[in-house]
Amino acid sequence: MRDVAVIGIGMTNFGELWEQSLRSIWVEAALAAMKDAGVDYIDSFYVGCMSGGLFVGQEHLGSMLADYLGVCPVPGTRVESACASGSVAFRLGFMEVASGMSDIVLVSGVEKMTDVSGDEATYALATAADQEYEGFHGITFPGLYAMIARAHMAKFGTTRKQLAQVAVKNHANGALNPHAQYPFSITVDEVLNSVKVAEPLRILDCSPITDGAAAAVLCPLDRVKEFSQKSVIRISGSGHASDTIALHSRKDITSLAAVEVAGKKAYAMAGVGPKDIDFAEVHDCFTIAELCILEALGFVEPGQSGPATEQGKTARDGAFPINPSGGLKSKGHPVGASGVAQIVECVEQLRGEAGKRQLKKARRALAQNMGGSGGSSLVHILEVV
Amino acid sequence: MRDVAVIGIGMTNFGELWEQSLRSIWVEAALAAMKDAGVDYIDSFYVGCMSGGLFVGQEHLGSMLADYLGVCPVPGTRVESACASGSVAFRLGFMEVASGMSDIVLVSGVEKMTDVSGDEATYALATAADQEYEGFHGITFPGLYAMIARAHMAKFGTTRKQLAQVAVKNHANGALNPHAQYPFSITVDEVLNSVKVAEPLRILDCSPITDGAAAAVLCPLDRVKEFSQKSVIRISGSGHASDTIALHSRKDITSLAAVEVAGKKAYAMAGVGPKDIDFAEVHDCFTIAELCILEALGFVEPGQSGPATEQGKTARDGAFPINPSGGLKSKGHPVGASGVAQIVECVEQLRGEAGKRQLKKARRALAQNMGGSGGSSLVHILEVV
Repeated sequence: MRDVAVIGIGMTNFGELWEQSLRSIWVEAALAAMKDAGVDYIDSFYVGCMSGGLFVGQEHLGSMLADYLGVCPVPGTRVESACASGSVAFRLGFMEVASGMSDIVLVSGVEKMTDVSGDEATYALATAADQEYEGFHGITFPGLYAMIARAHMAKFGTTRKQLAQVAVKNHANGALNPHAQYPFSITVDEVLNSVKVAEPLRILDCSPITDGAAAAVLCPLDRVKEFSQKSVIRISGSGHASDTIALHSRKDITSLAAVEVAGKKAYAMAGVGPKDIDFAEVHDCFTIAELCILEALGFVEPGQSGPATEQGKTARDGAFPINPSGGLKSKGHPVGASGVAQIVECVEQLRGEAGKRQLKKARRALAQNMGGSGGSSLVHILEVV
Repeated sequence: MRDVAVIGIGMTNFGELWEQSLRSIWVEAALAAMKDAGVDYIDSFYVGCMSGGLFVGQEHLGSMLADYLGVCPVPGTRVESACASGSVAFRLGFMEVASGMSDIVLVSGVEKMTDVSGDEATYALATAADQEYEGFHGITFPGLYAMIARAHMAKFGTTRKQLAQVAVKNHANGALNPHAQYPFSITVDEVLNSVKVAEPLRILDCSPITDGAAAAVLCPLDRVKEFSQKSVIRISGSGHASDTIALHSRKDITSLAAVEVAGKKAYAMAGVGPKDIDFAEVHDCFTIAELCILEALGFVEPGQSGPATEQGKTARDGAFPINPSGGLKSKGHPVGASGVAQIVECVEQLRGEAGKRQLKKARRALAQNMGGSGGSSLVHILEVV
């Protein structure tokens, strides 16, 4: 397998993009990534999208987006793993370049979620759970994650306030991100007093419904200098794993097995461990998710994620900064795009281009993305060469 | 890149499988392929499915199917390119093994189309067209292919009877296929007198709505003998290309550019041409599609597909047998599964295991699958080593 580099990144603003369509936001992100990479062609592309069918009545995105980017007959492949769709696109692009089959591959994600009603969006998102055993009985994702939160609180003594501190920290970061949907700070009291969604989770524990697209351009490491004069960013690890789709089939709902296995695979490929990671973007679809992920990836011991957050260890100036972009919580969560948007943040930080969000130490980054209540997860490690 | 072999195949019966679910038919096909391959584990899998969201309210199939096959934490990736979804899964599995990332990869396709009403299925299928410029204005796939048929008749003198002969030939083959949804012969008169769907196409020009799943197991060529003692089948060519999603953007709607480009890529990789292919499975979603494909793949000159079919050249005992399985027309068309079911037929023929359908000469096969009205297409070439 060949070494692979990320040479270009691009993303739209995240938010309620009423005047744009799925195809227009995707093309905006794709062109931005190609411009940043300095390429005027691609050999193929991947697009992660959770449910073009239910959100906008459009499948067959590979063909449609090739058409609207103006690159036919270049092949486009749409991939889906619920909210982890974007990082599946990233992994497959990595594999296509690593295999030697192609040199210049665009990887991307997109979701246009606000063209349907809130009820319809909630139904569409619930198709990431086991519909026959979970969704059709009425549970939606806030309810599933609320059960995880309750179990984590019971098992480890995690507090309601610690959950709130995840959201407060991510909003503090997102306030500095020009692409964020909710670029403002919030307080612990505001989280604790916000509208209840599913006990113990409140609205400010939940990531929003978002429109957005993100893209990156990959090429073989030994060809980087033909295109880009920026810092060389190598993909050093990639892991992908699955878990039972339904919570009721798991031995312990406070741990995320797919995240743990994907993390171990990525660490092994990169030859590093959690202590070698300078910062991470992780899948904080709900505040409790970020806590469970920190434990699954080995950043802290099981049960220690709440205290670590409370002590500021995951803040931008902490021992291991988590979600410097603002995370899904503040930046927004266009489900198919989130995995690629994490890569965009990692690359901006690694290049030293993150502006007011720039971390002091940013040589090796980890991006963790997951689908459903953790039924699938992908972990990637990127580093400055 | 490493050489890759197909060592196992499996599929369900195709038809209206009222008493089974998407997960049960997929597991049936996957286990059959693993048993045929002689493997008791897989490193990863791909599943092609066009619209789990619209047909059964279930996305996130990678997680759900890993769960129901009992292989967690093995990663599963769902891919989609409308009716070409299955062959995208096949291509990505090929790439994953070729790259050296994995050794034993299951590739598969599934669609459960009869759990919704006919109107809902028609809407779901129309999401493979350009919804904003085609679908939402009321056109569905029979209408799109009817326009292609009219144009082909006007440009080349293709006759209504020649279209019918595609269906007659494919049903004659499908009558010998124990997995076929409609395993019976039909006559030209029956096609010509069947119910009109979209002038000039009649119901017997159209592939049906079908439930079904198909799977194959891939491994590096140099490891085949560890698992399977059957004929060694190598994947010698793979091509993937896109075209405009909407018909109105094409210069000439009688030619299928994505099929032509994908075919050329596959031929080039395999180092062969159309004359070197012993037989082919092609995407006869409508009778006119098979005719256009024969021309795009170079089996005949443009305009000659109708006469060639009339002369019996594409019959099982003809010069270049097309769709010995019965094709989508007679075997059935569970959209996400069709691309992999084509591979199943190719392997059965190449192994000499096709029973009453067995072709005399079967050393090199071509499988062509496409999405929408040809907005995406994949071509694979398989050969006995």
